[in-house]
Amino acid sequence: MPGRTQKKLVDSAPQRILADFKVGVDNVIFSVDTDQNRLLVLLVMRHEEPCIGQWSLPGTLVRQGESLEDAAYRVLSEKIRVENLYLEQLYTFGGPDRDPREASTSYGVRYLSVSHFALVRYVEAELIADGVSGIAWYPMHQVPKLAFDHNQILEYGYRRLRNKLEYSPVAFEVLPELFTLNDLYQLYTTVLGDNFSDYSNFRSRLLKLGFLQDTGVKVSRGAGRPATLYRFDANAFAPFKDKPLVFI
Amino acid sequence: MPGRTQKKLVDSAPQRILADFKVGVDNVIFSVDTDQNRLLVLLVMRHEEPCIGQWSLPGTLVRQGESLEDAAYRVLSEKIRVENLYLEQLYTFGGPDRDPREASTSYGVRYLSVSHFALVRYVEAELIADGVSGIAWYPMHQVPKLAFDHNQILEYGYRRLRNKLEYSPVAFEVLPELFTLNDLYQLYTTVLGDNFSDYSNFRSRLLKLGFLQDTGVKVSRGAGRPATLYRFDANAFAPFKDKPLVFI
Repeated sequence: MPGRTQKKLVDSAPQRILADFKVGVDNVIFSVDTDQNRLLVLLVMRHEEPCIGQWSLPGTLVRQGESLEDAAYRVLSEKIRVENLYLEQLYTFGGPDRDPREASTSYGVRYLSVSHFALVRYVEAELIADGVSGIAWYPMHQVPKLAFDHNQILEYGYRRLRNKLEYSPVAFEVLPELFTLNDLYQLYTTVLGDNFSDYSNFRSRLLKLGFLQDTGVKVSRGAGRPATLYRFDANAFAPFKDKPLVFI
Repeated sequence: MPGRTQKKLVDSAPQRILADFKVGVDNVIFSVDTDQNRLLVLLVMRHEEPCIGQWSLPGTLVRQGESLEDAAYRVLSEKIRVENLYLEQLYTFGGPDRDPREASTSYGVRYLSVSHFALVRYVEAELIADGVSGIAWYPMHQVPKLAFDHNQILEYGYRRLRNKLEYSPVAFEVLPELFTLNDLYQLYTTVLGDNFSDYSNFRSRLLKLGFLQDTGVKVSRGAGRPATLYRFDANAFAPFKDKPLVFI
């Protein structure tokens, strides 16, 4: 990631042979179980070498004629059925020795991973278990040691998710169309932790932004007072789309 | 480039042969000429095929044993001498047909570009012209048609630069250690355009953030009143480092 000082490059034994690569895409697919306040990440168990039997991010190698983005969508569509999703490129991990197949005694090529970040709605995402040894929505805080450098990729994706909640309306991609302010607060708390803001500051901040449309409908849940249902107003948000903005 | 709807994948004629890649890094290197209020990007003229004689972003192909970041620093150190710089990975461009060498009648491998974004101080960056047909700081608004998809990569880098000015203290990497509020405003205006904010709002916003340390020293420039010199106070900024924040 970012560095501030120019590195001194030691070029005493120049190694000028170009590296050959296979290119993979690995997807960090998040969803939020809003009923249980759990942040979940999709993992699959590898059923071939290397790292057979280990949990990993769902990924694939890019085929001839295929774009990076198409490969990312292909992985997704092989693992889950979902109507709405948000997908973007995350970061490219490509240092030497990140994949055991790179050993010169093996195939002699390097494996680069163009990771992608996706967010889907938990309630509408159906897992597809065909042909894998295992597939699971893992709670973020119970993720085991993953294959390759996938824990590092996941950590990077988790940081992106928090940034996106802070700076963009991505939360409304995973909430139901109608939601209470408490639903929204729970979602933020689930991802950002309890201390990111207290409820009343969060509430007044969000209402002041002017993108939440009061539907006039109230719902009762449990013992509390009936709560107003809101809808994200994409038209009201449009003029702010390219402006710098903080949501919390 | 985010998408919201799952693509329908047509798999009628599956092409399952894995692609082979060479991996390049291409650097979008910006600097701001604060005397002339010009945003500049470093271009080099290609001296070999493909695209010989065209201007392009400085780039190279990744060598055996070399990390992506090391390759990016290598390109930079071959083109400019500079003490301080900011460098980070930008985006990976890897669609089929982005490089004429990919034609199946040619080498039969694909070329992927892991682009990087860098910002250097204009006054201290010395260009190195050894072994290139041309090298130049091009004003952003006079950039010609570049080789490959480099105009698209540059556009992506430009968007990142604007975002970084809005959300991070990156401006202080390219300003001299002591600067006036007008210097800072000119830098923002040069990159973001005249209408991003009026001077008095910008001034009060920046002072309120509390990261600018008044040095007590004043300078006279031209006919105006003497202006106070400020310094960016990294210690005062530290507690805000991981908080969401808008600078303008």
